[in-house]
Amino acid sequence: MKSIQVEVKNVLATVSEAEIKALDAEVAAATSKLYDGNGEGNDFLGWLRLPSETSDSLIEEISSTAAQLRSLCDYVVCIGIGGSYLGAKAVIEALSDSFATLKQHNGPQVLFAGQNIGEDYLYELQSLLSDKKFGIIVISKSGTTTEPAIAFRLLKEQLEKQVGKAEASKRIVAITDANRGALRKLATEEGYKTFVIADNVGGRFSVLTPVGLLPIAVAGFDIKALIDGARTMEAASLNGENNCVAAYAATRNALYRAGKKIEILVNYNPKLHFLGEWWKQLYGESEGKDHKGIFPAAVDNSTDLHSMGQWIQDGERTIFETVISVGEQQHKVVIPTDADNLDGLNYIAGKRVDEVNKMAELGTVIAHVDGGVPNMRITLPALTEFWLGQIIYFFEKACGVSGYILGVNPFNQPGVEDYKRNMFALLNKPGYEAESKAIQAKLG
Amino acid sequence: MKSIQVEVKNVLATVSEAEIKALDAEVAAATSKLYDGNGEGNDFLGWLRLPSETSDSLIEEISSTAAQLRSLCDYVVCIGIGGSYLGAKAVIEALSDSFATLKQHNGPQVLFAGQNIGEDYLYELQSLLSDKKFGIIVISKSGTTTEPAIAFRLLKEQLEKQVGKAEASKRIVAITDANRGALRKLATEEGYKTFVIADNVGGRFSVLTPVGLLPIAVAGFDIKALIDGARTMEAASLNGENNCVAAYAATRNALYRAGKKIEILVNYNPKLHFLGEWWKQLYGESEGKDHKGIFPAAVDNSTDLHSMGQWIQDGERTIFETVISVGEQQHKVVIPTDADNLDGLNYIAGKRVDEVNKMAELGTVIAHVDGGVPNMRITLPALTEFWLGQIIYFFEKACGVSGYILGVNPFNQPGVEDYKRNMFALLNKPGYEAESKAIQAKLG
Repeated sequence: MKSIQVEVKNVLATVSEAEIKALDAEVAAATSKLYDGNGEGNDFLGWLRLPSETSDSLIEEISSTAAQLRSLCDYVVCIGIGGSYLGAKAVIEALSDSFATLKQHNGPQVLFAGQNIGEDYLYELQSLLSDKKFGIIVISKSGTTTEPAIAFRLLKEQLEKQVGKAEASKRIVAITDANRGALRKLATEEGYKTFVIADNVGGRFSVLTPVGLLPIAVAGFDIKALIDGARTMEAASLNGENNCVAAYAATRNALYRAGKKIEILVNYNPKLHFLGEWWKQLYGESEGKDHKGIFPAAVDNSTDLHSMGQWIQDGERTIFETVISVGEQQHKVVIPTDADNLDGLNYIAGKRVDEVNKMAELGTVIAHVDGGVPNMRITLPALTEFWLGQIIYFFEKACGVSGYILGVNPFNQPGVEDYKRNMFALLNKPGYEAESKAIQAKLG
Repeated sequence: MKSIQVEVKNVLATVSEAEIKALDAEVAAATSKLYDGNGEGNDFLGWLRLPSETSDSLIEEISSTAAQLRSLCDYVVCIGIGGSYLGAKAVIEALSDSFATLKQHNGPQVLFAGQNIGEDYLYELQSLLSDKKFGIIVISKSGTTTEPAIAFRLLKEQLEKQVGKAEASKRIVAITDANRGALRKLATEEGYKTFVIADNVGGRFSVLTPVGLLPIAVAGFDIKALIDGARTMEAASLNGENNCVAAYAATRNALYRAGKKIEILVNYNPKLHFLGEWWKQLYGESEGKDHKGIFPAAVDNSTDLHSMGQWIQDGERTIFETVISVGEQQHKVVIPTDADNLDGLNYIAGKRVDEVNKMAELGTVIAHVDGGVPNMRITLPALTEFWLGQIIYFFEKACGVSGYILGVNPFNQPGVEDYKRNMFALLNKPGYEAESKAIQAKLG
């Protein structure tokens, strides 16, 4: 089975093949740490063999739950934050019509909440749903994370008022801890359908668990094919030769050591915007610690060639790019001929729009490489569930390898607690009395 | 009249008041260059006095054109790229309902095209519009920029097929050069309503010209209030004392000199996402040249506290943040009490959601400052046309001042030409024969 390809020839003006090759031993050691489970964060390695270990019966259970929600609801609100939001969002956006919210739908619209604390956002969501048939997927290991907990409290109350407690229970699915926590307890009491977030899979590695799979299935996409893609990459990445995971992990670390501090993930397809956001979380949260780590940024081209393009071409030479190059488009649009040709486009009349896009991409790569920006390219044959499954697993595994090479624990996120602790102190949360006193003294 | 405030006290652990104050002379010199028009790029200073020079009759003309489009169309596609896209997009998103595309509209939906070369995007747009009453605002100085020219060729043909040439002419408005260029010529031939892009206003400074104002007015927003806000800031920024433009420009340059290479624009309101994108273009394209310039990035919190938050808290200490803090929300949502309190949220029951958001913001600022991230804060009292007009002009002027302090021409974008030249060569555009030969030789 074919797998996605990584091309590194356009970094060689900055780091030589020998310099990349010199990381082979570190890649091998990092990979061993993952498979032997003897590195830091080894209690969060459940994602590593997840695709091959995902049973057909779990996929069927998710699919039938999705079918149930699809039959009962015109809108399904997926409540979660961070990894419980970005994975599903990335896949759904990549596979959806660009104007899906303006078109008739075969099945419910999947909306998101609990990923912010926007009062207007929640008001406007509640007003939208006030006369709609809606359901909820609530995702939280503990059930007490502030953002999703607020959204769920509001929407659960609204749903129960609109359809009664019994019907609401049929339209709410909880994805949470197997045994413990507030959401597990509530789900048991109310009789919600539930799925489990495994203890050994962190949020940013959870898209191929029910956390991502259920919303993706509710949106009407083929989660079996998504898992198949991930399985293919899981197998391909075991290969010693021509291993794209190893190539990507080694090359980006070589570039970082050579002073390239910012990695820009580049797409030429507007549907990949949220894959970039998902990738930023995966890499930023895994590597940004101990005062080190590549700063992850993302651009959507050609849009951003008219925005960040100038900086990338001519700014500080501290960046490198990783381009996700999509092969085939789903639809065909040919540039028409125009008799007057005032716009001067007749030289590309008869071509498909994507042919022009591909030349924008190639022309940009050449310009940036010439301008001193090393460039990697990841080829994705098409935006389908299968290829998305491949690239998701590819980035996850490369992230684990890369983080170990960097010398951090890629699977924790201690810095995320700092703002929470301050927020709880400022809100006088019970249990934070000492912190409240300290922060109030600090604020004067 | 009140103006927005800039607070810099949370940068003082990195750069002292004296170090910021030491830039006073450079700020004054840069400001003089703008007003005297004797700096580099001085043929692009039309934006500087634009708010005060915008006539009531122009605003009325734009408003009545918008009213005409609103009466004729259910969808208006705004075709433009870069500055001809991001300004209108940023203001419309900031002022719109978060779920506007899913709700009944009083007036047309404003869509965007020509800001990418997505074949699927264009196909899906054309399919959406196939049975809709739509119109077009086409924005291009020359009329030959590839991305918008392709979109316009396709949509103009579609519109003429759907409603005939005569009716199409009533529904197309062109914003272009006063006299020259393909789009001016076409508009004259076809009898389109037109507005002028002044020679002395570059794309990224164009949001307060018809380029931004017409789409914003079509979306139903008050462009008079937007200009009023900009006028207020234009006047306030002439003030020697308590000048927020000077404070921002000086502080960010002091931080850059102190090794802070990345500026992250932070919001706590999801409606400001595209203001961040607009700001990235404004600053990235103005400053990213001569192998220098702050790298502009943006995050949407609290969403991204669960994504980039870890990196910001604990990654390389080469960043600073500029927070846009919005005062009032438009709507009110109170967190309900729950008898069972399984989620443990009763300690904030009865509070407005925004009170929690404000404590997330304050808690994060404290955590990041404690973690070594200097922090500036820009206070925007509310998301209204007036305050958005203020912040737009604020950022524009601070960008001009800042770029001159950095020692670059803030008003050109030579790097944007490089990819275009390669793309034309690869597509064998007439006039690029030598470049085609060279690039084909290079590709082997």
